[in-house]
Amino acid sequence: MRISELADTTGVTIATLKYYLREGLLHPGRSQGATRADYDETHVERVRLVRTLIDVGRLSIERVREVVTALDVPPESRHLLLGTAHDVLRQSASGPPPEAVVARITSLGLPDCAGSPASTQLAQALAAAEAAGWPISDATLTSWYAAMTRVADADVVPELAAMSPGDALHHAIIGNVLTDPVVIALRRVAQEALSARRFEAGGS
Amino acid sequence: MRISELADTTGVTIATLKYYLREGLLHPGRSQGATRADYDETHVERVRLVRTLIDVGRLSIERVREVVTALDVPPESRHLLLGTAHDVLRQSASGPPPEAVVARITSLGLPDCAGSPASTQLAQALAAAEAAGWPISDATLTSWYAAMTRVADADVVPELAAMSPGDALHHAIIGNVLTDPVVIALRRVAQEALSARRFEAGGS
Repeated sequence: MRISELADTTGVTIATLKYYLREGLLHPGRSQGATRADYDETHVERVRLVRTLIDVGRLSIERVREVVTALDVPPESRHLLLGTAHDVLRQSASGPPPEAVVARITSLGLPDCAGSPASTQLAQALAAAEAAGWPISDATLTSWYAAMTRVADADVVPELAAMSPGDALHHAIIGNVLTDPVVIALRRVAQEALSARRFEAGGS
Repeated sequence: MRISELADTTGVTIATLKYYLREGLLHPGRSQGATRADYDETHVERVRLVRTLIDVGRLSIERVREVVTALDVPPESRHLLLGTAHDVLRQSASGPPPEAVVARITSLGLPDCAGSPASTQLAQALAAAEAAGWPISDATLTSWYAAMTRVADADVVPELAAMSPGDALHHAIIGNVLTDPVVIALRRVAQEALSARRFEAGGS
């Protein structure tokens, strides 16, 4: 299809598609002479992925380029693959987390994925909360981990083992991007329900 | 204290403090003549709050102004208060969620907080995932809600009832901003642990 049809199919303007091509977020079409190129289903899918990462995941163009690059050359190991997914989805944070926080995570019996993007992200988030005067108790952390294991149970599906590395990576990235907002919204709804139960009866 | 001392105490430059004053994120100091003003502990606390909302919560200046305005005139009811907190923390989304999604939330037995910021956020997140080709099954949604109720149990503490409306609102906003990243990081760590258990043994 021509670029104008790609624009119609995806609902993304030609100017934006050209921007994606320039920035390397979208692979070039098959050249059909000096001024025309032909695009196919892989372009439609890629444009949809890029839009989801930007609109829902709020990733920067820089970060989207990392995702796309990782998808083009995915790691072979399923386990490394999840690390790659978590790495491109990480919140930017400055420097390695404090050793005391890392030691605490281990001492609580949380999985020791020393140096994995996920455990680094956890240590950084804990350190940031603590620095802002919001320490999280061991009991809360352990309880939250149990709860998030329940959430993750639906994330790490057996089907992943049968997918190609590229498909599995796509699944891990897009699944987290699309469902993190659902999980956080469920937390808010649960807060409202508990608040109604605990405080409404009391009058205010 | 002078503005230079406020800068030293908070680690925020004088230029940025003046920007916060102009934008109404920071209340004016007590005037001490035409070119001097006096700042106190309330300013130190407010600057720290603004930094946390921007650095950890990644809120826009616009959204930070909403938080600050809400804190200055907090609602009296504990329950409305949580709605206010959720409202300022919402992800910007376009228009009301589709009725079918709202009906589905109710039919699953999730709390019917019709029109509350939290339930609107949930419906929008579900609709966005579905539109991007990632439907979430009823079983997963119910299981995730149970898990997030466990998380919220540590959020809605009895102490909230004894706090002033302003303090309780501050608690609800800052607690969510600081701990959402912890909860999401725990999800990633749990994914890694489950992935290792389910796939590592199999060789890849």
